[in-house]
Amino acid sequence: MSSLGDRLRQLWPRRSVLGALLLGTGGGYLWGRAGDDVLSSVVAPEGPSGPVAKAEGKTHQITLVASQVADNLTYNRTVPGPTIEIVEGDTVELTLVNELDVDASVHVHGVHYDITSDGTRHSKSFAPPGGRYTYRWFAAAGTAGYWHYHDHVINRPEQPPETREHEGSGGIDRGLYGAVIVRRPGEALPDKTFVIVMIENTLNGLRFPNAPFLEAREGERVEFVIIGHGDFFHTFHLHGHRWVDPGTFRLLDTKTVGPAESFGFQVIAGEGVGPGDWMYHCHVHDHMDMGMFGFFHVMPK
Amino acid sequence: MSSLGDRLRQLWPRRSVLGALLLGTGGGYLWGRAGDDVLSSVVAPEGPSGPVAKAEGKTHQITLVASQVADNLTYNRTVPGPTIEIVEGDTVELTLVNELDVDASVHVHGVHYDITSDGTRHSKSFAPPGGRYTYRWFAAAGTAGYWHYHDHVINRPEQPPETREHEGSGGIDRGLYGAVIVRRPGEALPDKTFVIVMIENTLNGLRFPNAPFLEAREGERVEFVIIGHGDFFHTFHLHGHRWVDPGTFRLLDTKTVGPAESFGFQVIAGEGVGPGDWMYHCHVHDHMDMGMFGFFHVMPK
Amino acid sequence: MSSLGDRLRQLWPRRSVLGALLLGTGGGYLWGRAGDDVLSSVVAPEGPSGPVAKAEGKTHQITLVASQVADNLTYNRTVPGPTIEIVEGDTVELTLVNELDVDASVHVHGVHYDITSDGTRHSKSFAPPGGRYTYRWFAAAGTAGYWHYHDHVINRPEQPPETREHEGSGGIDRGLYGAVIVRRPGEALPDKTFVIVMIENTLNGLRFPNAPFLEAREGERVEFVIIGHGDFFHTFHLHGHRWVDPGTFRLLDTKTVGPAESFGFQVIAGEGVGPGDWMYHCHVHDHMDMGMFGFFHVMPK
Repeated sequence: MSSLGDRLRQLWPRRSVLGALLLGTGGGYLWGRAGDDVLSSVVAPEGPSGPVAKAEGKTHQITLVASQVADNLTYNRTVPGPTIEIVEGDTVELTLVNELDVDASVHVHGVHYDITSDGTRHSKSFAPPGGRYTYRWFAAAGTAGYWHYHDHVINRPEQPPETREHEGSGGIDRGLYGAVIVRRPGEALPDKTFVIVMIENTLNGLRFPNAPFLEAREGERVEFVIIGHGDFFHTFHLHGHRWVDPGTFRLLDTKTVGPAESFGFQVIAGEGVGPGDWMYHCHVHDHMDMGMFGFFHVMPK
Repeated sequence: MSSLGDRLRQLWPRRSVLGALLLGTGGGYLWGRAGDDVLSSVVAPEGPSGPVAKAEGKTHQITLVASQVADNLTYNRTVPGPTIEIVEGDTVELTLVNELDVDASVHVHGVHYDITSDGTRHSKSFAPPGGRYTYRWFAAAGTAGYWHYHDHVINRPEQPPETREHEGSGGIDRGLYGAVIVRRPGEALPDKTFVIVMIENTLNGLRFPNAPFLEAREGERVEFVIIGHGDFFHTFHLHGHRWVDPGTFRLLDTKTVGPAESFGFQVIAGEGVGPGDWMYHCHVHDHMDMGMFGFFHVMPK
Repeated sequence: MSSLGDRLRQLWPRRSVLGALLLGTGGGYLWGRAGDDVLSSVVAPEGPSGPVAKAEGKTHQITLVASQVADNLTYNRTVPGPTIEIVEGDTVELTLVNELDVDASVHVHGVHYDITSDGTRHSKSFAPPGGRYTYRWFAAAGTAGYWHYHDHVINRPEQPPETREHEGSGGIDRGLYGAVIVRRPGEALPDKTFVIVMIENTLNGLRFPNAPFLEAREGERVEFVIIGHGDFFHTFHLHGHRWVDPGTFRLLDTKTVGPAESFGFQVIAGEGVGPGDWMYHCHVHDHMDMGMFGFFHVMPK
């Protein structure tokens, strides 16, 4: 078991019932992170043993280039787009450069922005073909969590005329999405972060045997960010590992993910269960059978 | 930021970790309300700055008339039916007057009632055509939350014979539903309440551009009540605003809503983000593209 | 109201806000149980009035025989399979005896096990026809909750070739599933436990009028364990009773259940509402109309 866990358990008699709950008393998981002031409160006397997020009030200048790669629409030629990781108190100035032949945008979840950064067609906050548009986000105190960004203007071919001028979901269908992580000052930084977008019957647009292969060494602190998109609902399940449902006291190993829902958690790879090819998958029968699964390969220490 | 928020943050060092968590530390949202004893505990020394719910042990005499309006079945000629707002400790004596040509009923969620007020055909608690039936509910301590009522006996045309004599969902399909708000004594009363029922590909039976247009002035305390019905699952998303998932410590701006699930939250209109036409919508792609969206118009102060 | 409830309410002024929240202040429900250290903390001075779970570090030797009964595939000739009830700190040594003519396995949720007990084809942890395989689980501290086990290797007839060699959901479709309850030492034991698996349009493979008939006497402590499987999402609703969403402070009477999600709760039968034929059902309209409902018959004291 982790020495951090042991230390926390030593702390708990001097602390609140709540702290003990969130920390659990055994191995195999850490805790939910979004909204977890409680965690830093409990940990504060000594802090996590590894690196932690620091409040610096940074302004991040980010450029996302929307372009087509094979049949995908992409931000910066990857699906998902780059993960944007910031800390509460930070500002993002994100410029979208649109190399597509249709209007494109960036709409973000969770953080603060004014209506000119909304990313809808209705609010005219998009970039025309060959153009660019700059969005400004602010990660206000309290917005720590696992969020995401996506296009909100590209239409599906079959979208009816009366809604085409207001919003669209066709850009997401084809790959225009990515994760946003807002960290709380003091929270533990993971050794690795894996972003999994559950969209239609795929993981990041891919199916087994092409689904993301996740790899870590036993004992590493691994962060999972799970995002839903598309027409369907999914349940994310990870073998051999479990986590506290973010913001609650409940241990889970399977969780419903609807379109545009997102959550995240950290685990210690193989804690209490050891190395192995641990399957992760959507637990909807026809989705998993269609290849909506991959492996989290935990190597021995 | 709100002065209430500032005041609460001043209080927090003298109070529990838990209080601080639920209140958050930044702008743009207030808190989840259902089951939030903690809130009133933390707020108690000074209380919310505005009006609050008061325990008075009232008995509410309510009449709902079921009648057909165009193709809709309605309670009191509106869809959704009237919102029933009570306080823990209150009793409701609700008389259903049935002007339809089929049996109709009222089944309620969340509060207490005995089997003669259950509203199912099985329990014979319905009103025949031209008749009436009186239901009695009690909002016991602990039942504060965002609930709802609906018909439970009208059959769908295609319903198989073996279940028709026990329950039906055809009345809900056509409009027989409404919200029930049970307030906890001391909880802050909103300036405005918006009820949104996500049923099939509609919001309250309507699609854009006819979907509910929600309007508030920046700084107003606005309450959203979200209810699911029908055959489909939805994710409710509100642009530019976020809320603490009721009963947890987790900040959300998108949440799964299954049939007969309900939740609610309060926001300060435009807090941290300013005025604008803020879209609200189901985030399931084909639902939103079919017009399952509307706008929350926040006017400048 | 229950004397236990009264006693807890007397305790609460001497205890945390959190305790009071989880206990509620009124009748009709008890609390969520998974992850509820808080409960035993609050109750500890006197403990529940009835029997409680005890930590004994037991090793349970369990045999499950997979065999076909009519069209069903079964563990020990029942659907669901036998409920496995253990306490944190216990070990399970479970031997699967496979009397089917295809490979079969047992995959478990929530507890700890190494990769040789994973129950996937990929990890080769299955029993061939006529063979057997032994799995070892450990209910580590912190894993208390309502979990489940199921086959993970039998293919659906239509499963595509590229995934057939890694996992399968066809065994679950036909009945190879059951509940696992991990109790926390000190938690109250129920008078009765009902396991309801929501799979396709059925409850435990059955539809009304054949759906499980649940029976209890008013005042009995009744535990519900709800598990999802299959291709569809459901919402579990129980008439006249409500519960605190496990691990949160929120009262519910309707909850989304996706495939492989599971949760549980305890209620006092008829508390605050009295005896009756209380319907329980999936609230998805076409599911309930197809007979995805049954009755919880609460007899007078």
